[in-house]
Amino acid sequence: MPSGLFTDLYELTMAHSYFRRGLNQPATFAYFVRAPVPHRRFLLFAGLDPLLSALQNFRFAEEDLAYLDSLDLFSQDFLDFLGRLRFTGEVWAMAEGEVCFPGEPLLLVTAPRIEAQLVETLVLNILNYETLVASKAARILLAAGPEAMVVDFSPRRDHSPEAALHAARASFLAGFHATSNTLAGKLYGIPVAGTMAHSYVLSFPDELSAFRAFAEDHPQPVLLIDTYDPLEGARNAVRVAQELQAKGKRIVGVRLDSGDLAALSREVRRILDEAGFPEIRIFVSGDLDEYRILEFRERGGVAWGYGVGTRLGVSWDLPALGGVYKLVEDEKGPRMKTSPGKITLPGRCQVWRREGFRDLVALDEEAGEGQPLLRRVMAGGERLLPPLNLPQRREEVRQTLFSLPPELADLRPHANPSYPVQISPGIAAQLASTGLKL
Amino acid sequence: MPSGLFTDLYELTMAHSYFRRGLNQPATFAYFVRAPVPHRRFLLFAGLDPLLSALQNFRFAEEDLAYLDSLDLFSQDFLDFLGRLRFTGEVWAMAEGEVCFPGEPLLLVTAPRIEAQLVETLVLNILNYETLVASKAARILLAAGPEAMVVDFSPRRDHSPEAALHAARASFLAGFHATSNTLAGKLYGIPVAGTMAHSYVLSFPDELSAFRAFAEDHPQPVLLIDTYDPLEGARNAVRVAQELQAKGKRIVGVRLDSGDLAALSREVRRILDEAGFPEIRIFVSGDLDEYRILEFRERGGVAWGYGVGTRLGVSWDLPALGGVYKLVEDEKGPRMKTSPGKITLPGRCQVWRREGFRDLVALDEEAGEGQPLLRRVMAGGERLLPPLNLPQRREEVRQTLFSLPPELADLRPHANPSYPVQISPGIAAQLASTGLKL
Repeated sequence: MPSGLFTDLYELTMAHSYFRRGLNQPATFAYFVRAPVPHRRFLLFAGLDPLLSALQNFRFAEEDLAYLDSLDLFSQDFLDFLGRLRFTGEVWAMAEGEVCFPGEPLLLVTAPRIEAQLVETLVLNILNYETLVASKAARILLAAGPEAMVVDFSPRRDHSPEAALHAARASFLAGFHATSNTLAGKLYGIPVAGTMAHSYVLSFPDELSAFRAFAEDHPQPVLLIDTYDPLEGARNAVRVAQELQAKGKRIVGVRLDSGDLAALSREVRRILDEAGFPEIRIFVSGDLDEYRILEFRERGGVAWGYGVGTRLGVSWDLPALGGVYKLVEDEKGPRMKTSPGKITLPGRCQVWRREGFRDLVALDEEAGEGQPLLRRVMAGGERLLPPLNLPQRREEVRQTLFSLPPELADLRPHANPSYPVQISPGIAAQLASTGLKL
Repeated sequence: MPSGLFTDLYELTMAHSYFRRGLNQPATFAYFVRAPVPHRRFLLFAGLDPLLSALQNFRFAEEDLAYLDSLDLFSQDFLDFLGRLRFTGEVWAMAEGEVCFPGEPLLLVTAPRIEAQLVETLVLNILNYETLVASKAARILLAAGPEAMVVDFSPRRDHSPEAALHAARASFLAGFHATSNTLAGKLYGIPVAGTMAHSYVLSFPDELSAFRAFAEDHPQPVLLIDTYDPLEGARNAVRVAQELQAKGKRIVGVRLDSGDLAALSREVRRILDEAGFPEIRIFVSGDLDEYRILEFRERGGVAWGYGVGTRLGVSWDLPALGGVYKLVEDEKGPRMKTSPGKITLPGRCQVWRREGFRDLVALDEEAGEGQPLLRRVMAGGERLLPPLNLPQRREEVRQTLFSLPPELADLRPHANPSYPVQISPGIAAQLASTGLKL
């Protein structure tokens, strides 16, 4: 959907005013998330690649201009200007999959003021959602542990087909193994996975017939065993596994989707093991999230893999991220908004990562220490990086995730967590001059 | 995105098995929402028109088939079959904007089993989200009251640009007045609205200069007065209104976006009234939802209109709807899933609306009373209805909404509300034969 029209109307009315007044010098806007973010001790930055593509495609089609003309808000010379407009700005950003925190800039846009203003809605929409899902996925992975296979089952509850694509991408970036979303598999090269539904079982005279049919028709069958009685389902799976064994074939696993998953999984494991099938894997699903997976494991649940849907794709315990995009500098210098509780950063910044994720946010002109996290990724409206290698980056993100310090990996809910972000003397001085705290 | 590939992989592996076995007789699936739905005493059904369009466009492109081939799961004759596949089924559904309840079928699909199965993900994704947002929007409207103007400000926090389009559509259907989403304005003919951002004010030497500039450049200015101090902002708005008065122009309103909105709105009202501008309207925004609007009004807040964003578009207190799509009947008769807590309806049903929203769900062959809510909207894959007249339907929905019985209009949070839905003797008998409750 590469349309400049995907924007809040006020971006256009403001742009119109800037245009009339020749207020189109370069300005810098920062994308950051306001603290606190309930239940999140860290975030995973995501959505940069889709955003850069959208910025490259940012334009107003003829029919967009005709629509805007019909609103009787804009002058013809402004509409002509919009027709020629392309995004020509510079973007600095963290790498996708970077562990990051509220209060620090994750992306900076410097562009002629009108361009920088008009892309606000796009920047916020894409980064807020992918970062939200990647951050949720990271917690789910921490709960499941490094050995478990975790699969995105969210398409049916995500907020539109396009949301489902972003959810599949962001959860894979965070370290998920696969998605059920076939379109995401094709578009992003994410492995796809899936089992069978209750409706399949109901389409046969009985469960055993359904299992036999599916095992015959699918090279790597995973049988859903809880349409009727899950333990009887496990015994039917054993029968099919025994029949297949005679033909040199096997079933990969069974799936539980309802009931007391921890207790059932232990019973099912026992049935499979006693029948001589320790290699048959148990997958569990059904309104799972990090809290339920932790509880499942604490109660002795046995699972090789987890299918996680609704609560991943809508980030159930935090369904939106309070990311904002604020003017921090223009031709007249740093700009701060000072309304209570909504302070912005004063000027262009860098984020310095020191040992143990103790980040320092410093003004560009200040010296930092450690590793600078914001890199220039776009200049003159052109991308400076090749498209992200998603599988490779996923590996790096998983490694970071499973070696986080305990205070960051802590999954206990907390309405008001604190973050290891410091501000530099330069920023502190600017804030002090206004009598405000960031 | 008219791609058959937007589906969960298991739909395709099941379809492959049905294809191999010639299991492709007509089957009926019902879309319904499982009770209880926390914090929702009723739902507004939405998303039908976009769904019907998607069903009409359902197909697999050459490149989709090539991708599926690469998975090594499907036979060539099945891929050829998918290449020719179109949705040819029949759809019965409630009207968009209908007040409805968990436990009753909102839509029925009857089609050759493979088609009916393959569209599951699409049906669930689109109906779940639009119904979720329409239902949330209805509550927000009830809180704001019939006199208030309520505007969708959600694009920056919705879960993708496409989600934002659905949010704008569903909230307008429910009775909202406008959206800030310019693309939704163009695509759906929804009125667009917007004011100005803090960054605009920051782009001028001081607030008064910004207000003067905006009032000069915009035919119907609404001034955002809380970038610095909201009461000083109100006084600056008065100054600009006085200057405009001399030229025969006016400002439409002021907007408050932060702080104690109820207290500030009263102060701002007083400043405007004392200066002789009782006609200048106050708009409020900032993380609003039905609970906060009710509190605002109970505390004596004064607002002509509300901008509602994040908490509308992600349905903050209930970020996903548990809508399901279940096989209820096939060539062998009614089909019921009986796993604990996940019972399905036994067979094709109608929903009869009796006085006071006391709905009756009855089998097709049973007599009903009142008004049947499920209408045939598609046959042979072709729509039987013209596209929805959204503004006209919105008027009807608003009328219903503001005359709901008090027990339905009650906005107090409730984790486990009950619904006025009865089942017929025929359904009760079938359930009794299994010893289960719906």
